[in-house]
Amino acid sequence: MRDFMDLADFSGEQVQDLISLAKRLETRPEPDALRGKVLGLLFFNPSLRTLASFQAGMARLGGQSFVVTPQASWQLEHRAGVTMDGLAAEHVREAIPVLASYADALGIRAFAGGVDLEADIEEHQFRIFHELCEMPLINMESAVNHPCQSLADWKTLDDLGVRARNTKFVLSWAQHPKPLPLAVPAATVHMAALRGMDVTVLRPEGFELPGPVMDRARQAAERSGGSLAETSDRHEALDGAQVVYAKSWGSTRHYGDGHADAALRAGLTDWCVDEPWFGSAAEDCRFMHCLPVRRGVVVSDRVLDSPRSVVRQQARNRMFAQMAVLYRLLKRTGS
Amino acid sequence: MRDFMDLADFSGEQVQDLISLAKRLETRPEPDALRGKVLGLLFFNPSLRTLASFQAGMARLGGQSFVVTPQASWQLEHRAGVTMDGLAAEHVREAIPVLASYADALGIRAFAGGVDLEADIEEHQFRIFHELCEMPLINMESAVNHPCQSLADWKTLDDLGVRARNTKFVLSWAQHPKPLPLAVPAATVHMAALRGMDVTVLRPEGFELPGPVMDRARQAAERSGGSLAETSDRHEALDGAQVVYAKSWGSTRHYGDGHADAALRAGLTDWCVDEPWFGSAAEDCRFMHCLPVRRGVVVSDRVLDSPRSVVRQQARNRMFAQMAVLYRLLKRTGS
Amino acid sequence: MRDFMDLADFSGEQVQDLISLAKRLETRPEPDALRGKVLGLLFFNPSLRTLASFQAGMARLGGQSFVVTPQASWQLEHRAGVTMDGLAAEHVREAIPVLASYADALGIRAFAGGVDLEADIEEHQFRIFHELCEMPLINMESAVNHPCQSLADWKTLDDLGVRARNTKFVLSWAQHPKPLPLAVPAATVHMAALRGMDVTVLRPEGFELPGPVMDRARQAAERSGGSLAETSDRHEALDGAQVVYAKSWGSTRHYGDGHADAALRAGLTDWCVDEPWFGSAAEDCRFMHCLPVRRGVVVSDRVLDSPRSVVRQQARNRMFAQMAVLYRLLKRTGS
Repeated sequence: MRDFMDLADFSGEQVQDLISLAKRLETRPEPDALRGKVLGLLFFNPSLRTLASFQAGMARLGGQSFVVTPQASWQLEHRAGVTMDGLAAEHVREAIPVLASYADALGIRAFAGGVDLEADIEEHQFRIFHELCEMPLINMESAVNHPCQSLADWKTLDDLGVRARNTKFVLSWAQHPKPLPLAVPAATVHMAALRGMDVTVLRPEGFELPGPVMDRARQAAERSGGSLAETSDRHEALDGAQVVYAKSWGSTRHYGDGHADAALRAGLTDWCVDEPWFGSAAEDCRFMHCLPVRRGVVVSDRVLDSPRSVVRQQARNRMFAQMAVLYRLLKRTGS
Repeated sequence: MRDFMDLADFSGEQVQDLISLAKRLETRPEPDALRGKVLGLLFFNPSLRTLASFQAGMARLGGQSFVVTPQASWQLEHRAGVTMDGLAAEHVREAIPVLASYADALGIRAFAGGVDLEADIEEHQFRIFHELCEMPLINMESAVNHPCQSLADWKTLDDLGVRARNTKFVLSWAQHPKPLPLAVPAATVHMAALRGMDVTVLRPEGFELPGPVMDRARQAAERSGGSLAETSDRHEALDGAQVVYAKSWGSTRHYGDGHADAALRAGLTDWCVDEPWFGSAAEDCRFMHCLPVRRGVVVSDRVLDSPRSVVRQQARNRMFAQMAVLYRLLKRTGS
Repeated sequence: MRDFMDLADFSGEQVQDLISLAKRLETRPEPDALRGKVLGLLFFNPSLRTLASFQAGMARLGGQSFVVTPQASWQLEHRAGVTMDGLAAEHVREAIPVLASYADALGIRAFAGGVDLEADIEEHQFRIFHELCEMPLINMESAVNHPCQSLADWKTLDDLGVRARNTKFVLSWAQHPKPLPLAVPAATVHMAALRGMDVTVLRPEGFELPGPVMDRARQAAERSGGSLAETSDRHEALDGAQVVYAKSWGSTRHYGDGHADAALRAGLTDWCVDEPWFGSAAEDCRFMHCLPVRRGVVVSDRVLDSPRSVVRQQARNRMFAQMAVLYRLLKRTGS
């Protein structure tokens, strides 16, 4: 394994293999596995779980990590060919190769630009980071991907005994004060499809997932025996659901247009996941969310605090999923 | 030992046992004791000594730590039942259990709200954190407590050979530009009383320590053979003193009322501890302070730079005291 | 070795010995060399490479580090004898000894005051830090020095096979939006002279390096068989150059006077190192810079992205150079 950029780079069997390793490391610690190894963590955007779970996971394997945030250093320039006479004191063309050269692997978090949908979907920025990084690169959330979250979510579904086949997985849009990136919804719909589940994307008009995202998920579903549908009909979506995964994202119809997005979502206050949503769902239907989550906006307290909520398990599995990734990237065979 | 929340949870003998362990770890390093263990450190307020001494102490025991500050992530909501459509992106009901799930123990620093004295004294906020944290919890300074500081101070008194019985310990209020929390004075008065010292709280009118704080210290004094008094008479307080522990705190008469507090303290510029204060004290009377300290406001340069000042020893003992706490919390018996 | 404050504290042979050690640690890892050791890192100014390379280097030797930034704690007072009733909550007279007491060595970064040239050249501030620090002190960039950078640069020259004798090394001033400190140019000119190279300082009028800086470099050149010259004639400087080391710094004629400095540099837009500069240089002339570098201002993209640019090697060598320093400071002989 050279990088961990995208769950789509792996077959279902390879993902299962990573999850088996994650389970093994959860139950049988290997505190010397990565002795002397160093993980670099570069955050262009804030983090709580990602920072803590990567640092803790690396430590549990005997390695160490360092953290770089632009707040603690200086602004980094991303654009090519510019005269850098503004705020940015350093270009990513220097910063990324240099940080990579101190580390055995480099994790980078860089959210979507949020202006040009096509450039974001093509992961324009992250592809540049990949070219610049001579060491194994870990995607800690890019414009339209979050493979660490998806690997943790898959493990959580396995841990809970949620079957892969003939199981209805609903990814539902939810309310939020701001237009959030597509990273988690895009990664989630693909993960659930690759796992072979029957995936329904539930979202209001104007919040359709982009065609390339849906196409990719549909191809994964075809390979794995799952299916993919999209609807704005909540009743239809939730009928028989065994998992409801809530997440907010910005309007794709008005991508990059904050005013139009705000006007559209203003009328969608009933998109706060609440207990009545689960009326026609399976009795033991699970509630999932990647966190951070806004209580009373995305989901009601009573759902989030109910036994059907597995958000803490998802978050805890971030650590074990990432430990498996680090182990595969950094452990020398035979040593 | 399950948590380290409050020195009052321990008997004098148990505290002495922790201090013996701290002394042992100071002189005989155990660089593998906590191999593979992870300490999470969550700061809602800034820190210098606490962050550095916990990270250094954990490292000296062979473990590792991660640090989360709201500045590097996002604002966390504390209130129950609110609709989170404001600045806070995540609730402590998610953040704390998740961070605890990555760690073998979690340290939290959260200063007093400073508005509702009763809620602060009851440690309303820290009790919620305790409920949310399934792993051992360490109090890195709460509304009215700072047990790590008190344990370090006790060790410092022991190291210096300051007797426990028949020894006058003066906790003196001091000037400061701002109304500071009651955490250190409340913890200090209890620590000195539990150690069996004759404790005098010296403070201007309007800065009385709250009744519940004094009551708790008085009970500790009774159990340990010490005593507790309170006065605004500096001469009376300092007469025969063997320790002067300076600390500023906000007016308890005007708790949460910044204007009234400022008006009251404006007339108290002579509450900067200076060499003449020690005229009737014991010849080798020690000067203590928890740091950070404002020179020329809380204490004069000549006192702070004199041999009677032991503030650096106190600060250094933070590390050894906390190493003992970590060792007790995290070291598996027999391993 | 007690401290690492200044490359001038070492003979050329001692520097070569450190570089040999750095090369050994680069090729033959010693992941247990500093087990149980703790490095404290105190940044008064932002950092990217220095933080990451020190943390990574310490980790590769089996030790750990902690990081303190005034942003994450509070403002620290530097001035002696002041009444601290302003923003600063703690004095360096407490902060530095305390942080040193948690560590086996302390690294400090503190840029020049930039107001009083004489005080900066005398390293007034860093000398105080040295007095306050009872543990080995590492200069992570002071007012007019950056010995870690110079050690890494020397190693880079060795790695590249750039001869020490009869080799023309040009330190060239470059354009920049702000008057930067003298630390890197002062350290670089001394390093190149101590290595025995023929050093030319190329800078516009008004940007002369201060007399004491040049005198010190000249003495080093005399001891090592090198030479030192200064000119504003670009053609003369670059003729036959084998290394061009670019760096911007503030006008020394107008030290501390931002307006006069800005007026002077406004006319110097052609001081952006570009390919034509190398017309009369040696064919394989190298381009060096300490980073961060502003593309299109200090140096053109085509030079920075060309094979003659060795800035990434310089940056990577920061880690190995510093590992050698840490090893010498912290590794107990015979253990």
